[in-house]
Amino acid sequence: MPPIITAFERSPDGGKGLARDTRVRWALEEVGQNYEVRLVSFGAMKEPAHMALHPFGQIPTFEEGGLAIFETGAIVLHIAESRAGLLPDDANARARAITWMFAALNTVEPPILEFANARLLENDKPWSAQRLPLVADRVRDRLTQLSRRLGKSDWLDGTFSAGDLMMVSVLLRLKPSGMLDEYRNLSAYVARGEARPAYKRAFDAQLAVNTGQLPRR
Amino acid sequence: MPPIITAFERSPDGGKGLARDTRVRWALEEVGQNYEVRLVSFGAMKEPAHMALHPFGQIPTFEEGGLAIFETGAIVLHIAESRAGLLPDDANARARAITWMFAALNTVEPPILEFANARLLENDKPWSAQRLPLVADRVRDRLTQLSRRLGKSDWLDGTFSAGDLMMVSVLLRLKPSGMLDEYRNLSAYVARGEARPAYKRAFDAQLAVNTGQLPRR
Repeated sequence: MPPIITAFERSPDGGKGLARDTRVRWALEEVGQNYEVRLVSFGAMKEPAHMALHPFGQIPTFEEGGLAIFETGAIVLHIAESRAGLLPDDANARARAITWMFAALNTVEPPILEFANARLLENDKPWSAQRLPLVADRVRDRLTQLSRRLGKSDWLDGTFSAGDLMMVSVLLRLKPSGMLDEYRNLSAYVARGEARPAYKRAFDAQLAVNTGQLPRR
Repeated sequence: MPPIITAFERSPDGGKGLARDTRVRWALEEVGQNYEVRLVSFGAMKEPAHMALHPFGQIPTFEEGGLAIFETGAIVLHIAESRAGLLPDDANARARAITWMFAALNTVEPPILEFANARLLENDKPWSAQRLPLVADRVRDRLTQLSRRLGKSDWLDGTFSAGDLMMVSVLLRLKPSGMLDEYRNLSAYVARGEARPAYKRAFDAQLAVNTGQLPRR
């Protein structure tokens, strides 16, 4: 029995790959693990059956055998630890790759989410225009530091790892803002991630769900 | 040689335990691992020597033998995986405990940080009073869900784990706001964490650094 993940029945982004199941799909594709998808509507996400799986009423979740977990970072780490392909064998290199996973999710993503919230949830507020540049600058602080660390390297710590998978996924949310283009090495880094065959398969799979159900725009 | 961590020479909170080295100290105390601390000034944090260790110019870092990592979540996970006491032996229970670590850092902490930013960084802005309740409600959404999941349990998944260590640490930042008191089981949960001897030792150790260098208020 392959693992089962959950994904939006209709992703809020209409299939641009920003829903977090894409991260999990990508990890599964990198390790060559086939999987099944259970689609969940916005209504069903807040109902007891799904809340039992995911206490915050979100996607994705991951079920395999007797294991049921949620939280994208945890799922990707579980996939990376239980299959070869996303973490180096050397123990120290492995700990560093996991460090980049946490850095993506807990240092780089929070200001990006705050920026996304400012655009999505506070767009109609009287302070929106004045506040947005402040929030954008908090994102730039992080991008500048990340760009310096990446330098001319292809990946954050030697070879591609779950850390890069997560960092690229987090940065992808900035694409529509154009902010990524201010950092040439970061936009090339993200493009390298998107060019991976496993990413493409993951992207196409989530897109198929959405184009099958939403009219093309 | 015991591991070496870094901490603020002077913590911005003056020793209230909110600086993230407290999380790492707590983890080290739970597994009974002694450690050394290198204090870093705000200036030194942004200098090349420290930026080489921590690309985002923050604390804590963790060095042991040939390994140097940053990012609190990664450090706590590394401690939990390399010593007994913070993760269950059963593989599925282990994955669930790690899930709670990520949930603390990537689902519960971001709105709490946004709330903290609203109070600290945007306190003087014209929108501050109007915006703060909106941001507080985003925190409440998460706390309500977390409170439902915790229910009458002592810990999030059976016995105390690195997941609880991280969740309690994340929730502690809300204490001054009084928001935690709206959720009786969550404030009791945080109090249970604070009552652990390992937490107390960690708290006292970070406090000693700060009271030794800052005048008492």
